Amino acid sequence: MATGSTEGTVRRGRPGYDQETVLRRAVDLFNRQGYDATSIGDLARELGLTKSAIYHHVPSKEHLLALALDEALDGLDAVIAEAVQDRPGVSAYDRLRTAVRQSVEVLVAHLPAVTLLLRVHGNSDVEQQALARRRAIDERLSRLVQDAVAEGAVRDDIDPDVISRLLFGMVNSLVEWYRPGGPVDATVLADAVAALAFDGLAVRER
Amino acid sequence: MATGSTEGTVRRGRPGYDQETVLRRAVDLFNRQGYDATSIGDLARELGLTKSAIYHHVPSKEHLLALALDEALDGLDAVIAEAVQDRPGVSAYDRLRTAVRQSVEVLVAHLPAVTLLLRVHGNSDVEQQALARRRAIDERLSRLVQDAVAEGAVRDDIDPDVISRLLFGMVNSLVEWYRPGGPVDATVLADAVAALAFDGLAVRER
Repeated sequence: MATGSTEGTVRRGRPGYDQETVLRRAVDLFNRQGYDATSIGDLARELGLTKSAIYHHVPSKEHLLALALDEALDGLDAVIAEAVQDRPGVSAYDRLRTAVRQSVEVLVAHLPAVTLLLRVHGNSDVEQQALARRRAIDERLSRLVQDAVAEGAVRDDIDPDVISRLLFGMVNSLVEWYRPGGPVDATVLADAVAALAFDGLAVRER
Repeated sequence: MATGSTEGTVRRGRPGYDQETVLRRAVDLFNRQGYDATSIGDLARELGLTKSAIYHHVPSKEHLLALALDEALDGLDAVIAEAVQDRPGVSAYDRLRTAVRQSVEVLVAHLPAVTLLLRVHGNSDVEQQALARRRAIDERLSRLVQDAVAEGAVRDDIDPDVISRLLFGMVNSLVEWYRPGGPVDATVLADAVAALAFDGLAVRER
């Protein structure tokens, strides 16, 4: 899917909007007032279109939700698929640390879609499927943490499941405050998260 | 406020419920289906009472929200008030580390109330006041992080505001998965959060 548009003004030379723009505006609206509380009529008003013009672009509200959740999950799936791949000379620790950094980058690059994903509670088939994909990602990350503990690189005095939840709880909490274009660059942020999580905040004895 | 009841079965010898029990059940219902989407009628059905019986205990839905938000905020205020107090021989680093541990303990002890607090978006005066109290707590924590950086105990290569947001983002993310009575004890969890954040996950060279 084409991504990276930061403004809802992409057009294709004819009046109205393309599907990508409708999707961006829909996701923003879902995040602002809640998916369940948002109707296609609300979205039409937001875009200054009629409902039938919206249905020209998308078959349903749920289709927009599915597109957004897939966008977020595809990004995270790619990170984890690379991270769990055994490669000669690359430790589980290095792959885990990279996965944390890249998760931050995916979250920043797809912030509205990831925000929507993290608020999904399973009220429909689309949401249930997204939650199942999220659980599968969490399980693979949890096994990667276990591998990094087993190789002696990650501390073994904290339950690996707790480590996994704290790590990705910290990453996910970024949706509450991080705004692209603000004072903190995405790469700087990814480095900060990895440094805090793996090296700790305490200054080591010099 | 009397707190710490874990069951919704406390009664005072007369038929029906006391205010504390009504509050616990209301907070659970707010967390389950959303505060805005919950009516006093819903709460009455949940408790098997009439609406007028509910109004015998509490003047309004908003009063229940205010009680719950105050419970969460009073707990966090107490932690931060102690943490920002200068004491001879106690470094800002030690006070920060203690504040992180105690924040986890408050979150666990008042999980439903803190969960509700973290979902508030400022849709009413009560919510706006809670958000203002939250911001004041965040600002005091952020200054404590700055003090710990200034004394040379916390790394200075990450913006102190980012440190503060990551630290308490990790703490707050516990509401997404932690359940009291499960396999992870609150003290163990508080130790794990502090160890991850301050000492890091990476095993230090032996």
